[in-house]
Amino acid sequence: MAANRQLKLGAFMRPVSIHTGAWRYPGARRDANFSLEALTEYIRKLEAAKFDAFFMADHLAVLNMPIEALRRSHTVTSFEPFTLLSALAMVTSHIGLVATASTTFEQPFNLARRFASLDHISSGRAGWNIVTTSNPDAALNFGLDEHVSHADRYARAREFYDVVTGLWDSFADDAFIRDVESGIYFDPDRMRPLNHKGPHYSVRGPLHIARPVQGWPVIVQAGASEPGRQLAAETAEVVFVAPNTLDDGRRFYADVKGRLAALGRERDHLKILPGAFVVVGDTVEEARAIRARLDSLVHAESAIASLSIALGHDVSGYDPDGYLPDIPDTEHSKSSRERALAIAEREKLTIRQLAQRLGGYAGLAIVGSPQSIADDMQEWLETEGSDGFNLMFPYLPGGLDAFVGKVVPELQRRGIFRTEYEGTTLRENLGLPRPGNRFFPD
Amino acid sequence: MAANRQLKLGAFMRPVSIHTGAWRYPGARRDANFSLEALTEYIRKLEAAKFDAFFMADHLAVLNMPIEALRRSHTVTSFEPFTLLSALAMVTSHIGLVATASTTFEQPFNLARRFASLDHISSGRAGWNIVTTSNPDAALNFGLDEHVSHADRYARAREFYDVVTGLWDSFADDAFIRDVESGIYFDPDRMRPLNHKGPHYSVRGPLHIARPVQGWPVIVQAGASEPGRQLAAETAEVVFVAPNTLDDGRRFYADVKGRLAALGRERDHLKILPGAFVVVGDTVEEARAIRARLDSLVHAESAIASLSIALGHDVSGYDPDGYLPDIPDTEHSKSSRERALAIAEREKLTIRQLAQRLGGYAGLAIVGSPQSIADDMQEWLETEGSDGFNLMFPYLPGGLDAFVGKVVPELQRRGIFRTEYEGTTLRENLGLPRPGNRFFPD
Repeated sequence: MAANRQLKLGAFMRPVSIHTGAWRYPGARRDANFSLEALTEYIRKLEAAKFDAFFMADHLAVLNMPIEALRRSHTVTSFEPFTLLSALAMVTSHIGLVATASTTFEQPFNLARRFASLDHISSGRAGWNIVTTSNPDAALNFGLDEHVSHADRYARAREFYDVVTGLWDSFADDAFIRDVESGIYFDPDRMRPLNHKGPHYSVRGPLHIARPVQGWPVIVQAGASEPGRQLAAETAEVVFVAPNTLDDGRRFYADVKGRLAALGRERDHLKILPGAFVVVGDTVEEARAIRARLDSLVHAESAIASLSIALGHDVSGYDPDGYLPDIPDTEHSKSSRERALAIAEREKLTIRQLAQRLGGYAGLAIVGSPQSIADDMQEWLETEGSDGFNLMFPYLPGGLDAFVGKVVPELQRRGIFRTEYEGTTLRENLGLPRPGNRFFPD
Repeated sequence: MAANRQLKLGAFMRPVSIHTGAWRYPGARRDANFSLEALTEYIRKLEAAKFDAFFMADHLAVLNMPIEALRRSHTVTSFEPFTLLSALAMVTSHIGLVATASTTFEQPFNLARRFASLDHISSGRAGWNIVTTSNPDAALNFGLDEHVSHADRYARAREFYDVVTGLWDSFADDAFIRDVESGIYFDPDRMRPLNHKGPHYSVRGPLHIARPVQGWPVIVQAGASEPGRQLAAETAEVVFVAPNTLDDGRRFYADVKGRLAALGRERDHLKILPGAFVVVGDTVEEARAIRARLDSLVHAESAIASLSIALGHDVSGYDPDGYLPDIPDTEHSKSSRERALAIAEREKLTIRQLAQRLGGYAGLAIVGSPQSIADDMQEWLETEGSDGFNLMFPYLPGGLDAFVGKVVPELQRRGIFRTEYEGTTLRENLGLPRPGNRFFPD
């Protein structure tokens, strides 16, 4: 661990926020799902604060939730990531642009091309958040009656990755000569078809686009399961998970980083950036009050209905302002019950508060003052809980403004976050090497 | 025909030009395939000249041509249309953005979403140039050993169109309420799944994006065959073909416009904009000299080899600076032979010149002075040969500069081209109605 090790920071974005109550928060921008003006403002602020990347969350269907929750959710609709990030490339110059894209519902040839194009448009700032898409409703939008199984999705994902990265290597960097005198535009000996024939994909190539500026866009992965971890260790350069605690984070960090040597990869060439919901107040108490207010904007009745499902026990008959009684064990939904009970106990939440927490955002959260948040982040960094974070803001623009205005300067003062970008590409800023070309190693 | 009928003008673009010799022309920009700066300059000039639309040509494979021609071609690689047009949306405010997209090698759900997103990003300037992709090399990039047949491609295209337009209608325009007090973000009664189950596609929906600003992006079609014409009459709002002569154009115009009434469509709601290669000189002679010079930059040997194939007769043994001898009839390649012979006779071209013409750009061309070009365009407009043109420039930026600097002012002086945009959306500028929503007709 180098002495001057610094945090890497991404912003994991939905236009209105990840939190389902965010759009009702005072001062929150409610129509950002289709406001390019709002998203331009946000990404410019993140770039001014020297964030590494703007991650665009995505899904491939209207989310499946009960109608009472659905009609209260701002997450139903938004821009498509490639079109949005290409537009945002034009109003920024350094921040990375990470698009979520599915290996289950896209064609590798089209996806490889689109990422290469985004990388050219942004002068080397593209990243690919590889997802296998677990939402069964998505399958119905793609002519499949049943969802592809978990194991099959991971086998496809690995082959898909091989095809896409192979297509990116279609041209040597020096293939384009453009010699007016001889009339030779490019050297066909510096172009290679892929000729891939595998169990799931058959793709001839070559891709009809010059190699991406970064060689390959940065590969990002979020899988936490065993096949997800192994795929990440084999392929990812940024891993984005959401452990519940620092201890969980350190175990995950040690596990995934520990797999790299056997794969011939350097430890620093994979960055672990847990997703974290970050709420800033001038004091810790104020931050907690902001979060409590935000959670209180989640619809209680549908949240309590969802909590009952999570617990495997109907709690709608209890006083919502009281605490949970002992919940009988059932084999059904064991992990979600334990998670809910742990949160309720740790934070002393009433039934309504617990339900609204789970219905808002219940993953890893860093809630506090600029000092305490910087302390927490520094501890994660220095104890190998992470290499940085992928941050989610509670509401926009206020939650983002508070972080970039108050926490970033504190991180910079401590020397654990950059004050200037190291380079112009996402790889350069993350400290990742440019991949060699498998066909043209020289 | 209204008295003040005006031309509609699109620019049909490849970054370097359609003409294969263009990159060698003095002053031509050779690296525009991956220069966003160059494309930004071009589209801004087109917008300043009040062009209706910037059409991005596209294909889905490295083009299949003999290696000697291929390595001399600048058309091998370029940006992907959606990423490019989304970026260009940010540097323009009125010009339409038409993406070519295939109904054979895309998923309708993904494509519908991407077009809707481009339409939101551009505030209503998106258009879809529907192609069925006839390049057999493309199939090999998508896991298909054999290309889909012509008839099957058109049947799929029609169903694909039905699915995509149906998905665009997923939400009523007033679905998004965003009422902070009640906590209702949208009205699920104003959202409708498509539940499409057809012979080629099964797509549930709804699309998770608000209805496009234009209702639907403008539908563009290029098919000239019988199924292509019928698909155009049924679905297209802009038809983009390349007749060889004004007489051909008038026949096509009468045929396609004549199909509309039986389909319940108004004659003005489909615009016929032939593709035309336009070469401007200060005099007609200068324009012809520019074209001859441009053609002379096409590689003669590979062009003569291609000419031999077109003629069904090897002409490589003849003096290339002489005229074609009588070519014996063969049943093989009858239409391409007749076309080549007609061009050679009409323009008195030598074998080399004919070969280079066919290897450069051999379709409809308007070559002349600003006056003569305006005369030609006016004749097409006034005799119902077309409603305007989709122009291709011989080289860039010079060929574009000459057109917008010299011909556009002449068209405007004659009152047959706008001096200000009529509206802000592509539909408004083309004079096309906003389609009703099939699920929410009110």
